Amino acid sequence: MITKLWQKEAGSSNNYQQIVEKFTVGNDKDFDILLAEYDVIGSLAHAQMLHKINILSAEEWTLVEQELNHILAQIRAGNFSIADGVEDVHSQVEFMLTQKIGDAGKKIHTGRSRNDQVLLDIKLFLRAKIQEIAEDTRVLFAKLLELSQAHQDKLLAGYTHFQIAMPSSFGLWFGAYAESLTDDLETLLAAYKVCNKNPLGSGAGYGSSFPLDREFTTELLGFDSLNYNVVYAQMTRGKTEKIVAQALANIAATLSKFAYDVCLYMNQNFGFISFPDELTTGSSIMPHKKNPDVFELVRAKCNRIQAVPNELTLLTNNLPSGYHRDGQLTKECLFPAIETLQSCLQITAFMLEHIRVKDNILADDKYNDLFSVEAVNAEVLKGLPFRDAYQKIGKQIENKTFVADRNVHHTHAGSIGNLQNEAIGKAFAQVFEQIVRK
Amino acid sequence: MITKLWQKEAGSSNNYQQIVEKFTVGNDKDFDILLAEYDVIGSLAHAQMLHKINILSAEEWTLVEQELNHILAQIRAGNFSIADGVEDVHSQVEFMLTQKIGDAGKKIHTGRSRNDQVLLDIKLFLRAKIQEIAEDTRVLFAKLLELSQAHQDKLLAGYTHFQIAMPSSFGLWFGAYAESLTDDLETLLAAYKVCNKNPLGSGAGYGSSFPLDREFTTELLGFDSLNYNVVYAQMTRGKTEKIVAQALANIAATLSKFAYDVCLYMNQNFGFISFPDELTTGSSIMPHKKNPDVFELVRAKCNRIQAVPNELTLLTNNLPSGYHRDGQLTKECLFPAIETLQSCLQITAFMLEHIRVKDNILADDKYNDLFSVEAVNAEVLKGLPFRDAYQKIGKQIENKTFVADRNVHHTHAGSIGNLQNEAIGKAFAQVFEQIVRK
Amino acid sequence: MITKLWQKEAGSSNNYQQIVEKFTVGNDKDFDILLAEYDVIGSLAHAQMLHKINILSAEEWTLVEQELNHILAQIRAGNFSIADGVEDVHSQVEFMLTQKIGDAGKKIHTGRSRNDQVLLDIKLFLRAKIQEIAEDTRVLFAKLLELSQAHQDKLLAGYTHFQIAMPSSFGLWFGAYAESLTDDLETLLAAYKVCNKNPLGSGAGYGSSFPLDREFTTELLGFDSLNYNVVYAQMTRGKTEKIVAQALANIAATLSKFAYDVCLYMNQNFGFISFPDELTTGSSIMPHKKNPDVFELVRAKCNRIQAVPNELTLLTNNLPSGYHRDGQLTKECLFPAIETLQSCLQITAFMLEHIRVKDNILADDKYNDLFSVEAVNAEVLKGLPFRDAYQKIGKQIENKTFVADRNVHHTHAGSIGNLQNEAIGKAFAQVFEQIVRK
Amino acid sequence: MITKLWQKEAGSSNNYQQIVEKFTVGNDKDFDILLAEYDVIGSLAHAQMLHKINILSAEEWTLVEQELNHILAQIRAGNFSIADGVEDVHSQVEFMLTQKIGDAGKKIHTGRSRNDQVLLDIKLFLRAKIQEIAEDTRVLFAKLLELSQAHQDKLLAGYTHFQIAMPSSFGLWFGAYAESLTDDLETLLAAYKVCNKNPLGSGAGYGSSFPLDREFTTELLGFDSLNYNVVYAQMTRGKTEKIVAQALANIAATLSKFAYDVCLYMNQNFGFISFPDELTTGSSIMPHKKNPDVFELVRAKCNRIQAVPNELTLLTNNLPSGYHRDGQLTKECLFPAIETLQSCLQITAFMLEHIRVKDNILADDKYNDLFSVEAVNAEVLKGLPFRDAYQKIGKQIENKTFVADRNVHHTHAGSIGNLQNEAIGKAFAQVFEQIVRK
Repeated sequence: MITKLWQKEAGSSNNYQQIVEKFTVGNDKDFDILLAEYDVIGSLAHAQMLHKINILSAEEWTLVEQELNHILAQIRAGNFSIADGVEDVHSQVEFMLTQKIGDAGKKIHTGRSRNDQVLLDIKLFLRAKIQEIAEDTRVLFAKLLELSQAHQDKLLAGYTHFQIAMPSSFGLWFGAYAESLTDDLETLLAAYKVCNKNPLGSGAGYGSSFPLDREFTTELLGFDSLNYNVVYAQMTRGKTEKIVAQALANIAATLSKFAYDVCLYMNQNFGFISFPDELTTGSSIMPHKKNPDVFELVRAKCNRIQAVPNELTLLTNNLPSGYHRDGQLTKECLFPAIETLQSCLQITAFMLEHIRVKDNILADDKYNDLFSVEAVNAEVLKGLPFRDAYQKIGKQIENKTFVADRNVHHTHAGSIGNLQNEAIGKAFAQVFEQIVRK
Repeated sequence: MITKLWQKEAGSSNNYQQIVEKFTVGNDKDFDILLAEYDVIGSLAHAQMLHKINILSAEEWTLVEQELNHILAQIRAGNFSIADGVEDVHSQVEFMLTQKIGDAGKKIHTGRSRNDQVLLDIKLFLRAKIQEIAEDTRVLFAKLLELSQAHQDKLLAGYTHFQIAMPSSFGLWFGAYAESLTDDLETLLAAYKVCNKNPLGSGAGYGSSFPLDREFTTELLGFDSLNYNVVYAQMTRGKTEKIVAQALANIAATLSKFAYDVCLYMNQNFGFISFPDELTTGSSIMPHKKNPDVFELVRAKCNRIQAVPNELTLLTNNLPSGYHRDGQLTKECLFPAIETLQSCLQITAFMLEHIRVKDNILADDKYNDLFSVEAVNAEVLKGLPFRDAYQKIGKQIENKTFVADRNVHHTHAGSIGNLQNEAIGKAFAQVFEQIVRK
Repeated sequence: MITKLWQKEAGSSNNYQQIVEKFTVGNDKDFDILLAEYDVIGSLAHAQMLHKINILSAEEWTLVEQELNHILAQIRAGNFSIADGVEDVHSQVEFMLTQKIGDAGKKIHTGRSRNDQVLLDIKLFLRAKIQEIAEDTRVLFAKLLELSQAHQDKLLAGYTHFQIAMPSSFGLWFGAYAESLTDDLETLLAAYKVCNKNPLGSGAGYGSSFPLDREFTTELLGFDSLNYNVVYAQMTRGKTEKIVAQALANIAATLSKFAYDVCLYMNQNFGFISFPDELTTGSSIMPHKKNPDVFELVRAKCNRIQAVPNELTLLTNNLPSGYHRDGQLTKECLFPAIETLQSCLQITAFMLEHIRVKDNILADDKYNDLFSVEAVNAEVLKGLPFRDAYQKIGKQIENKTFVADRNVHHTHAGSIGNLQNEAIGKAFAQVFEQIVRK
Repeated sequence: MITKLWQKEAGSSNNYQQIVEKFTVGNDKDFDILLAEYDVIGSLAHAQMLHKINILSAEEWTLVEQELNHILAQIRAGNFSIADGVEDVHSQVEFMLTQKIGDAGKKIHTGRSRNDQVLLDIKLFLRAKIQEIAEDTRVLFAKLLELSQAHQDKLLAGYTHFQIAMPSSFGLWFGAYAESLTDDLETLLAAYKVCNKNPLGSGAGYGSSFPLDREFTTELLGFDSLNYNVVYAQMTRGKTEKIVAQALANIAATLSKFAYDVCLYMNQNFGFISFPDELTTGSSIMPHKKNPDVFELVRAKCNRIQAVPNELTLLTNNLPSGYHRDGQLTKECLFPAIETLQSCLQITAFMLEHIRVKDNILADDKYNDLFSVEAVNAEVLKGLPFRDAYQKIGKQIENKTFVADRNVHHTHAGSIGNLQNEAIGKAFAQVFEQIVRK
């Protein structure tokens, strides 16, 4: 076991320390491992800056650079783990470095604290994950828009208050969820901007007496700008995670709603859509079942994700300024949610490859009344005041004499006959490109 | 009492309807009244468009325009209320209009549903409120930055884990909260963009057979673009409110944290700051009390605001697509939070006019250890390896031989000696100007 | 305007005080008024105890008793309000009392603080409201059980995964929600027990040097026991409200789920139930609509109620022990939720007076597969191993040769043919009677 | 790989099934394994009942009993896992059973569905865990009460509004948290009662055509009574978990608040308590740090636990009656929270073995004003009206002439001089014994 820097003496109280450590470290290493790559990238920038301000000699910097790149390669190859007795990913990297290059390795902790180190790791990690999520979202968006275009002429029942209301179409239905992702992406962009600022150099939240060149590391790490004020840089811990979680929650809300619609439309009383048997699930006692488990779990997982911003608020709220260890748990709140959201985006896109859409849904008599607004509007266009037309058709429905004209002629922007999918596509791309810059 | 359009027959069941109406309308009118101005503005744009597509004649449009402008003036003068027996603000405006100009007034409901009408009202209202909040935030930001600048040389104790850690300064402390508002504003900007799209023309969520010109109303109402897909336009109900609530929650989190610090720093064990007696509150049994009630309530109110996004999620989640009456309650969740946040921003700025900052805080012996990192770093700059320097100073502290050099020389960007307040000011302005465009 | 006790001097800073007071008092009086009755009841007990320990003379106590009873009568008659310039309900009662009886009135504040006074008021108020809610719940419970009994032979489709699964019945459906209320009531009972303890005498949270007789007030006020420890008594502020809110949330969850079912079953694709036209709502553009607005709003309001425990957690969490002004806002979180829940319970019971249940729902061919489990079980009872029977019927369904035997013979406890409504009724009563003791 | 019952045909779509299964099963097995013991206990009861109603022969029952007991022993010895390709714990147990005893093993699924099987497992598991938590709580309660008794004469400062208010004591402080656990336990008792009802026999939520004897299994499994109505039994999924989570959240709130106090009181500006160095944590850059990480993490972990009821609400809300796969995720929400709460209760009790309490805290001049209420009350007892006494002492404080009498004579129930710890102990035991019955 490696002695920790702050372990002044070991002695007989070792047993207590184990109890404390088991409780405080917990399963934190599982999440820390995700930061390994970014920890090394951050250390490379910090070390190069220390060289620039003459704290690392050219020789030392060369050694450090070589060995850190070597560790980075190991991590990317999947050959990295945090050893037993090592507290966290930062200690593991530092340990490997000093094992190889000795004192020069120790020096890279100059002008840096665990606090700004983990802040940096998290920002770099989240920045990368936001870009991955944006890409997963783009793939699903494209699939939805493609389905909207392909099925634009197929009508289905539109409901308000869960009651039969007016004709809708699969073009509208798929397209609506595509457009929904565009608005969600606006909040992901805000999260991206909040992540894309450099906290390195803020130390334990009160800066440093070393003449650090924070603009230089900002440039090296590709950040847009700095978290300038060092006290604020520290405050971004937890806050950044919460803003990212809000954006995830917005995407999750769209997915959850879509999944709900899918489960409802697969229900036999609706029967609007179906999936091949191999993508549904059976029952242990009912031989006829073809359950939409994938969509139920997309819904459920996305509903859990929507709980994360509140969880992070509870975790970080009513703590005065300055670091608190509570911040450690933001990782176990947020990181699994990122992975889950990505898997939900991906499996939804996969399932949509196989969706089957029913034809002629509205031919069924029970959808007759759907066309009442069309009939009212037709009367209005013929000159009847709206209120009178409404009463006239209302009476026909009451007397069961209403005969629906099942032709739908909607032409305005965004309606059944004019989906504006191209414009929707452009709007999405305009936000997407601010996140995933070429 | 005005008969509602959909009231097919009144008869003896009147009593039931009253029970139902009392329950369903509730106190909704209190919030509806806030939308009155935007309801009229929206009707003006809709009517002008109906004229453009030849549904309103030139004469009718002139009449409608005149009378709606008259109602708008009444509203702005504070002479508007929703009469007993009138269901909502939309009915009230329509009623006043038709009272004056008859059939032309009825016609403006052509090609429009209550659903897209209220969607529009809410978007216009929220867009305006976001701009007001941005302005309130700007005023507080400026005050904080001014205080940071004014008190940049006054040190206070910096804590981590609630333990004395390193020297901080009032320059850092005030400036940190200023910078925090900048990141919050990024999420307000996202909310602004989500609000700034035109839902008008989506009808009950399935569009219309009238040849509406949605691009024209988009332009008239100063929207950036449309909620294109009509099914999506309907989906923005609740979703828009939630995204706005997230942004409010972020600003509220910054205010709450600041208020917590203030309450803590006013505590006699800290004693870092104080306020004039007339801005504090006494106790009914303890004659010595000077309580920071304003800041306790800023904290508490801002903590309630942080609950709103979750409340809106619970309200709107797991509902399939299409309008549900549940959406009515988003107003009573969100609108009071807007007013509360504005009052918290304003009173915080007001209180800061009067804040008193203690001098020479760190002269007290108990803050000796704050300077240990400086001492370690000084040794490192003299050539001792960090780990050895750490051990050396650690031993001095253990033996009580550590003598603190109370001079702090931090020079890097964002540190005590180099606050970067100008850069922080520019960063804020850059986001602010995207919301409040000149 | 009445000078507050702790207002040491008025002078020119009056204007500041108004700003502060407007912000701090806010709309708190609207909620305070609900406590008036309990404030007087509490003062009566406190005064009688002060008499018992010789702080109030017999004469003074007689005066106080008379006048407080007079004020109580006014409150119960609805003739009570908090005057402008009076801060809260406690000040108003004290003011009225001293106006009438002078110094004896002032003396009743001896050995009491605003803190334990409001704690007491809230506990008495919540205890009474819990009993009212229990009674509202009992009425709805009885209605549901009656409907279960009345419609026990009418079958409807049972779903799992939103897919047609097995036969269910209206007997089961109504009865299930009745039984659900029983479990909810267990949590209301826990809340009742937490409320039913006396905090009076805890002062500002640190007790008093007066020889208060807390057991005596406990007995006078009908409490089960005391919040003994005075620091704990203070801690119950916020905590009590949260535990009550959890119980409300549980009842609300049952109501919300029921309302969801109702909205779904009223949908034309299901069509299982309906309500008279006068209990549904129309649409401004669709003449055929009969919307279930009451149930949508029961659902929505109950979903908001489910957000209250979290809101109270955010309000009170991470505050160290000792009173904080933040506690004031628990009233505006919880009190409206109580009123809303009562109205939801009452209107649901009212609506159920008028529910119409469809006959012969399962005669429709689309429900054929519902009976597959019955067929499998019949084979098993004839001797076929379950797995083989499952495969056999599965194949029939696949080949469309499956013929459903629509007779359902379920006999075990809690099944369609053996609802156990009597046992459910007894279980409910057993919990109910612990809350509403005769 | 074991073919699932409902897998009608495998073929080329195998790959799809793997994708679906990876997504749907996820890490569910990790939580399922915790149910293994209860799954077997439930199966034993179900099988014995099947024998009683003549579905299992005496021979079959003997075989089943023997082998299930054998599996149970394996589980308890830690020699049990869910094999790759086996979907869940139920399948694993069934697989092991049929491997050994063939057809008799298959028969035990008669009259049972996965749905009531997992419902039962969860109820049995939660019932046992509630008892463990009650016991962990009892241990901490006893420690707190012991410390209250031991340190009853040591005073510390009591605060309101974070301002110095009145004298408090370690007797009060420790005792308050002990009493707080008593109220929390009331909600745990409610959760226990909700768990302690038998759902077995409800099948997939619509009962069964087999003549199951549910009273018999109720007795065998030691349940208080049944979830009678089978539709309701199914509804308890998610609801039970939520009610348990509420109780956990209440205990967690008490722990979190206590941990907050500890962190604050360890702060050097307070300095009321301390812990041995080996139970604190150092810093990588500040050699003087002794951080209270254990309590920061108790607070943080308990704050996360407080988020769980809301998470479960989001997961289960707005789903109509009948099983939905969403229910699967309740395990991953709740089960880790149980383990975390137990570890927090245990480590807090452990840490309290080592707490050091400072003597003579109030001797410091800064605590002078704490005694102002005592002085006011002394004047009142001498005959001065309260308001005049308040003004008199107030003026002394203003003029800095106030001299504190540092003797505290509080005698009423629950005050510094009369802690009532015995009564608090009895109140706790009275609730505890309803959960953990001898």
